[in-house]
Amino acid sequence: MAALSINVSTVKPLGERVFVKVSPSEEKTAGGILLPDAAKEKPQVGEVVSVGPGKRNDDGTRSPAEVKVGDKVLYSKYAGTDIKLGGEEYVLLSEKDILAVVV
Amino acid sequence: MAALSINVSTVKPLGERVFVKVSPSEEKTAGGILLPDAAKEKPQVGEVVSVGPGKRNDDGTRSPAEVKVGDKVLYSKYAGTDIKLGGEEYVLLSEKDILAVVV
Amino acid sequence: MAALSINVSTVKPLGERVFVKVSPSEEKTAGGILLPDAAKEKPQVGEVVSVGPGKRNDDGTRSPAEVKVGDKVLYSKYAGTDIKLGGEEYVLLSEKDILAVVV
Amino acid sequence: MAALSINVSTVKPLGERVFVKVSPSEEKTAGGILLPDAAKEKPQVGEVVSVGPGKRNDDGTRSPAEVKVGDKVLYSKYAGTDIKLGGEEYVLLSEKDILAVVV
Amino acid sequence: MAALSINVSTVKPLGERVFVKVSPSEEKTAGGILLPDAAKEKPQVGEVVSVGPGKRNDDGTRSPAEVKVGDKVLYSKYAGTDIKLGGEEYVLLSEKDILAVVV
Amino acid sequence: MAALSINVSTVKPLGERVFVKVSPSEEKTAGGILLPDAAKEKPQVGEVVSVGPGKRNDDGTRSPAEVKVGDKVLYSKYAGTDIKLGGEEYVLLSEKDILAVVV
Amino acid sequence: MAALSINVSTVKPLGERVFVKVSPSEEKTAGGILLPDAAKEKPQVGEVVSVGPGKRNDDGTRSPAEVKVGDKVLYSKYAGTDIKLGGEEYVLLSEKDILAVVV
Repeated sequence: MAALSINVSTVKPLGERVFVKVSPSEEKTAGGILLPDAAKEKPQVGEVVSVGPGKRNDDGTRSPAEVKVGDKVLYSKYAGTDIKLGGEEYVLLSEKDILAVVV
Repeated sequence: MAALSINVSTVKPLGERVFVKVSPSEEKTAGGILLPDAAKEKPQVGEVVSVGPGKRNDDGTRSPAEVKVGDKVLYSKYAGTDIKLGGEEYVLLSEKDILAVVV
Repeated sequence: MAALSINVSTVKPLGERVFVKVSPSEEKTAGGILLPDAAKEKPQVGEVVSVGPGKRNDDGTRSPAEVKVGDKVLYSKYAGTDIKLGGEEYVLLSEKDILAVVV
Repeated sequence: MAALSINVSTVKPLGERVFVKVSPSEEKTAGGILLPDAAKEKPQVGEVVSVGPGKRNDDGTRSPAEVKVGDKVLYSKYAGTDIKLGGEEYVLLSEKDILAVVV
Repeated sequence: MAALSINVSTVKPLGERVFVKVSPSEEKTAGGILLPDAAKEKPQVGEVVSVGPGKRNDDGTRSPAEVKVGDKVLYSKYAGTDIKLGGEEYVLLSEKDILAVVV
Repeated sequence: MAALSINVSTVKPLGERVFVKVSPSEEKTAGGILLPDAAKEKPQVGEVVSVGPGKRNDDGTRSPAEVKVGDKVLYSKYAGTDIKLGGEEYVLLSEKDILAVVV
Repeated sequence: MAALSINVSTVKPLGERVFVKVSPSEEKTAGGILLPDAAKEKPQVGEVVSVGPGKRNDDGTRSPAEVKVGDKVLYSKYAGTDIKLGGEEYVLLSEKDILAVVV
């Protein structure tokens, strides 16, 4: 197997997973998000880069994701799997870990 | 990605999630809520700001939420994800964490 | 948002939840309930004040609650969310936490 | 709310619950039950006093209980909720906690 | 309630439960069962004495048990509820805790 | 009950269970399996001796097992119930604990 | 049973399992994956060597895997069962533990 070159455009999430670019925290502070209670789950801001084909239903069909490429999303800071590519942070999330879209 | 401006009207909850403005505790005391037993789950008061499209059923349809924008709700203090915007506290809840509407 | 006035008649439970006024313990002793084994779950007595629309079934219909307003109920002391209103204790229960009706 | 008088005949179990009078342990010893291994779950003997309408199925119908009033039953000592009425011990069990009928 | 006489023939298991006479350990050693690794679940040998009506399916029908009266069975030593009757050891098992029949 | 003679051919697994003869570890080393990370689940090699009738589906039918008598299988070292018969080690596994067949 | 020779081509995963050759970490560093937060789940890179027949649905049919032989995949470092064959590392994964394909 030759060396594998991974960059953003080559990552294709499976199933109900969504690939998200993590927004830097400066932007979040500017946007006004503060986390008053450290004991509670904290939201993170990111932008959807690619979306899997959707969750497979019991009958074999798929439910497409509610989010689309380019959506700004809020998700739990503790959810998903972090990946760093080209100096930028990304995260592979299950769609259910996305709390809201910021329009 | 340009700086992301988040304010209340731009947050659109996904699925069965509900976006709620937390009522300040002065108001709750005035309203007569006391929590006699610290070992038990404590209710919090808030007002629904926006509502997701509803929980996705197994057949792909959605069950719309029981609550609507403007509803005063009681929910568990420990549920959901806190967000602070413009000096106000908000919370992103799953609808199942909302205990009752105060009419 | 103006100050929110909460009293018993304004609390409308969601889904399968039931709003119950806790019976004072004097009454329970008079009624003969003793709890011989402290290691086991203890029942509490209360009266149903309001009832949610019922648990949502998978097909979107609802199963109405087995209890109705005015029913005297036994429920687990450790279940639900306590609320104090006007010096009286109330509890928001899931219907499944109600063990029996006392007729 | 006037004082609530609870006695055996007034307790109506909900759903799949069964109301059982606990048999005194003298009787059990006479009947030959010994519990050789303290580390394992121990059966208790009782008599069914009243039976709920049965477990609600997904389609809204109910599956009636396998036990009926008067049945002698074996159940786990650690299951259910104890209630003492008129000096006698009772227990509110889920039907699934009843292991066998003694005919 | 008169004294309850319990013996083997009077125990009727409910649902998917199976009533099994525990085989004495001498017999097991003779039969060649050794348990090389104490950290793992250990099988026990027994004989089926009576069988419940079977697990209730979602549609209300029952799936009859795979075992029948007289079957020699292997089951987990830690499963079920022990009962001693007339100096003999018995166990009330869920059918799923029976690993195999010895024919 | 007469003494029960257990040997390999008399063990008939129930449901989705599979009876497997554990391959000695010499063979595994010869076959090239090494376990580089002790913190992770370790595979074991064995040969299928007998197979249950298959997992019971919700509608009462059975899904036959993917493995058959004679198959060499990889399974988790920590799964199932060990049995020693005639100096040889066996294991009763649920089919889901079998990871792969070695053809 | 004769000595069992295991090599890559003889391992046939069952059900929804996927057999994956682990990519060496040099390659990953070259590909730009860095793991900034040690407290979170870390992705691993690998190449699909063989694929099981797919997850069995409730009606007995199978949903074929989303991945195919030769796919480069990202998966959780802590998922699955490690196997070393001929000096190379492999892992048996459930398809749900595969996060994304790298195309």
